[in-house]
Amino acid sequence: MPRYAAEVAYVGASFAGFQAQPNRPSVQGVLEAALEALSGSPVRCHGAGRTDAGVHARGQVVHFDLPRPWDPFRLRGAMAAHLPPSVEILQVAQVPDSFHARFDALWREYRFFLWNQAACVPHLRPFVWWVKSPLDWTLVQHLLPSLRGRHDFGAFCRSVDRPEDSWRTLLHVSCRRRGPFIRFRFRGDGFLTNMVRILVGTLEGVARGGMEPEAFLNLLEGGCRSEAGRTAPPQGLFFWRVGYAPSPWATPSSFHDRVQ
Amino acid sequence: MPRYAAEVAYVGASFAGFQAQPNRPSVQGVLEAALEALSGSPVRCHGAGRTDAGVHARGQVVHFDLPRPWDPFRLRGAMAAHLPPSVEILQVAQVPDSFHARFDALWREYRFFLWNQAACVPHLRPFVWWVKSPLDWTLVQHLLPSLRGRHDFGAFCRSVDRPEDSWRTLLHVSCRRRGPFIRFRFRGDGFLTNMVRILVGTLEGVARGGMEPEAFLNLLEGGCRSEAGRTAPPQGLFFWRVGYAPSPWATPSSFHDRVQ
Repeated sequence: MPRYAAEVAYVGASFAGFQAQPNRPSVQGVLEAALEALSGSPVRCHGAGRTDAGVHARGQVVHFDLPRPWDPFRLRGAMAAHLPPSVEILQVAQVPDSFHARFDALWREYRFFLWNQAACVPHLRPFVWWVKSPLDWTLVQHLLPSLRGRHDFGAFCRSVDRPEDSWRTLLHVSCRRRGPFIRFRFRGDGFLTNMVRILVGTLEGVARGGMEPEAFLNLLEGGCRSEAGRTAPPQGLFFWRVGYAPSPWATPSSFHDRVQ
Repeated sequence: MPRYAAEVAYVGASFAGFQAQPNRPSVQGVLEAALEALSGSPVRCHGAGRTDAGVHARGQVVHFDLPRPWDPFRLRGAMAAHLPPSVEILQVAQVPDSFHARFDALWREYRFFLWNQAACVPHLRPFVWWVKSPLDWTLVQHLLPSLRGRHDFGAFCRSVDRPEDSWRTLLHVSCRRRGPFIRFRFRGDGFLTNMVRILVGTLEGVARGGMEPEAFLNLLEGGCRSEAGRTAPPQGLFFWRVGYAPSPWATPSSFHDRVQ
């Protein structure tokens, strides 16, 4: 059976998360229903990463096997036609039978958007964490380079999900500010449960003056969840992109990188 | 009675337009209800321009008189607290009694966003005109400079609303493309009903090959609505900004210019 990879974007508010759950809307659920409608038999769909309820995706990647071959361009359109408006298939490619969306991922990139001003344009509200009181982002800028590299991120993981090995490597971390709009980028080899949201929530605590920068740096050498800050709300978080070698996509960079 | 100006952003899909209408949700209606709740008596609210059902605003300006003086910063917060999440007050200023949001406007700026690709990320769909088939935007780029200046835009006006004098001056017109994302800017001394939407709809016809560039240029010297193209859908249009001299706002440029 030929195997395909698809790049998927979705609005987090429409789903109880990526993973299929009984009686609750999930991205995996609507994708598998669309693929079953196309192929006439149940199709299992594997994602590069799970996203929680309310978390958006701009570049989630899934793979699946179909009983008969499809032209990837036609398959993209056919899948899109069977999906609700809150989900879109950005591109589809045929991949080797050994390709696995999750295990073959070299890195994942998340972005987090925050709006820091008393007023927020209503069009942006579903896609940002709106923090009304003024924060000191220069403190955060100074801390960010320390996040790069290999650290014990155990303090930045939901307690019940903390694995034995909580060391992860962040390849790229940045925070860009344009007026009240703040964009975080986190690219890493792997992420713990809620890691980006707890990192952003804790950095917001530093910017608010509720945590000393030194205390934040100490947490990167291991710590408890209770020592970190709050979990930032899901609607600011986007699962942005997944890196593979070789890339499954025909074009060297997917189109949405050009419009960021 | 002291007079105030407010800069207002709203999501067009939530309203039957700016103007108050019986038994239908309008931006003017919710603004006047909020002001009445604050002041205890009916308050009339005048907008710089009407927007049709489904059209967004990022910088609509309104003025109104209140029975007692307010600190503008507190007034902004109090108004925002009485409004639904689809409307936001970006800034408030006290203005001279002679200030009129509509008659004092030197220029108005509209922006129109278009997405030209088979796939469209779902987060953008409520804010763009999604055109799936490939278009030739270089033709449009060549035409745009001709739009600047004073022209008879009668062909780009909804027939029933066409005024005796359909000459208007466009001070700035541009079209920027980043991948599939196309942004139009139109700044002018005045706009006819549906003018921006008919201009964009007609330019899309040129880009599609359905209209010769020469035919488009001829329409700028006067013509009938039936000679122009279709009316682009409302959800791509944003009423972006209004220019006054002197500006009513304390800061030289409103904050959302910095985050465009």
